[in-house]
Amino acid sequence: MATHGGIDLGGTKIQTVIVDDDHEVLGSARRPTPTSGGPPDVAREIEAALREAAEQAGVEPASLAGVGVGSPGTIDGGNVTSARNLPDWEGSFPLASTLSDALGTPVRLGNDVQVATDAEFALGAGRPYNSLLGVFWGTGVGGGIVLDGKPWVGRGAAGEIGHIVVELDGARCTCGRRGCMEAYAGRSAMEAEARRQHEEGQKTDLFKLMEKHEKPRLTSGIWARAIERGDELAERLIDEAVDALGIAVASACNVLDPEAVIIGGGLGVRFGDPYAKRIYEAMMPHLFHDDHPPVMRVAELGDLGGALGAALLVA
Amino acid sequence: MATHGGIDLGGTKIQTVIVDDDHEVLGSARRPTPTSGGPPDVAREIEAALREAAEQAGVEPASLAGVGVGSPGTIDGGNVTSARNLPDWEGSFPLASTLSDALGTPVRLGNDVQVATDAEFALGAGRPYNSLLGVFWGTGVGGGIVLDGKPWVGRGAAGEIGHIVVELDGARCTCGRRGCMEAYAGRSAMEAEARRQHEEGQKTDLFKLMEKHEKPRLTSGIWARAIERGDELAERLIDEAVDALGIAVASACNVLDPEAVIIGGGLGVRFGDPYAKRIYEAMMPHLFHDDHPPVMRVAELGDLGGALGAALLVA
Repeated sequence: MATHGGIDLGGTKIQTVIVDDDHEVLGSARRPTPTSGGPPDVAREIEAALREAAEQAGVEPASLAGVGVGSPGTIDGGNVTSARNLPDWEGSFPLASTLSDALGTPVRLGNDVQVATDAEFALGAGRPYNSLLGVFWGTGVGGGIVLDGKPWVGRGAAGEIGHIVVELDGARCTCGRRGCMEAYAGRSAMEAEARRQHEEGQKTDLFKLMEKHEKPRLTSGIWARAIERGDELAERLIDEAVDALGIAVASACNVLDPEAVIIGGGLGVRFGDPYAKRIYEAMMPHLFHDDHPPVMRVAELGDLGGALGAALLVA
Repeated sequence: MATHGGIDLGGTKIQTVIVDDDHEVLGSARRPTPTSGGPPDVAREIEAALREAAEQAGVEPASLAGVGVGSPGTIDGGNVTSARNLPDWEGSFPLASTLSDALGTPVRLGNDVQVATDAEFALGAGRPYNSLLGVFWGTGVGGGIVLDGKPWVGRGAAGEIGHIVVELDGARCTCGRRGCMEAYAGRSAMEAEARRQHEEGQKTDLFKLMEKHEKPRLTSGIWARAIERGDELAERLIDEAVDALGIAVASACNVLDPEAVIIGGGLGVRFGDPYAKRIYEAMMPHLFHDDHPPVMRVAELGDLGGALGAALLVA
């Protein structure tokens, strides 16, 4: 039986898995993504994380049938360009050949959100459906598309649901544009807005919780804790995020008409079913064919989804 | 050489064509869509219009290899349901079998906007591209999608770009929802808004032009004439329509990332290249991958596009 490697390269962590032909996880490892240095340093850390998973699985990296990588930024063959969440990665870097040379096995790259969607389609919450929209609600909001059983990536840039416009001349997005859904629903946008309102005197426990739990930022867990204790600012910002998500998902479904919408990402998975239900309710008033809505499900593969999807690239 | 029929069933007119295998038009006819009666009356008028085109082409309807119909409403096999623009057509009507029995040739139904998009893809402005978004700017704003050379209709309801949300809690759309693009850009919404502002004392020549040219409503031609003479209200409403179109097309392209956007429909074709350019400019600020925008072109097949696309259903 052949073994494959999968790597989920994120802005905060590198997750690796080794799987067999049945997608059983034989080994896994997780390391923080380097926050300084440049692409070669990130590549070295990826290599180390893959070697760690391989050791756990009892296989040599060179004996793997291949390794897939889900990466942010623009994927152009074996190169990754403008991966803005990674250190000093504005230009193009030959990640596939660098890793392939280091590990002694073929390496194939894919878009991080698309491979996570592919994983949910093949192995997770999307299995019963033939077309789906993956909505990954975390630092930003990414989207992946499967149509007629196959990934749809357009000319390489499809699925940017975080930048669907939800408000004319609306809030400034981290991308520089106005009114993008991510400007309301992305965790970084939510943190910036919470900080702004807190500095203006709005009461909130968000930043106390962040310090208490020694987090460098408002993680999904911090948001969840603040909501649990009824923090008003947190509730209001999450309400706005849910509304923006619902509107953008409705717009995307009005275009695509998929069978299912899968809600994943750090916030999506942490908040789970009750919030998927709220996003569904926020979607319905803007869904044109509301007599035949898509099914909405929470992603099932959790933290390993991205790495499992990356492994599918070489399955 | 086989001959085929194509029928474009619209809210105001029925356009028929007879074409050969090379899509050459051998005959054509146009009749107003009945405004009273019900589906059987509309079907009789369709039959008469098809017979008229067949006579012009010198063929018997029963000798046609088949007839395609592009219809509004929901297409479910051979039935058309909830065609709101047609008289008394809320329920389901077996249009395919009714026409097939009357004409003595197989009849196949398709969505009106999708077949017009297919026609531009196969025979018109979309020929050089493998994926495209058709934007039909008229009474409403419909969308058609071609991905990887094939129509994408989802579960039968894809391409509803007129109901992409462009503004949170925005203008009331004819569909009853709020903030849909069509609530700003659809010709009926624009007419209702022009009338409202005119009644409130806003100066405009729109309704004088309508009466002078003996039109029952503000047609694309009336809008074009008002713009030519610098009518301020017309200019402002068209500006808002262009902005709404640009935003919704950007949102759709952020999801689909197609090679090209084809602008058709009564207003789209009448306003032509200068307005396609303006829609492009309104799209760009909201397009996420703005270094690699889609090509934007005006539809080439004009008034016959829908009927030619319908004929493709049986080609």
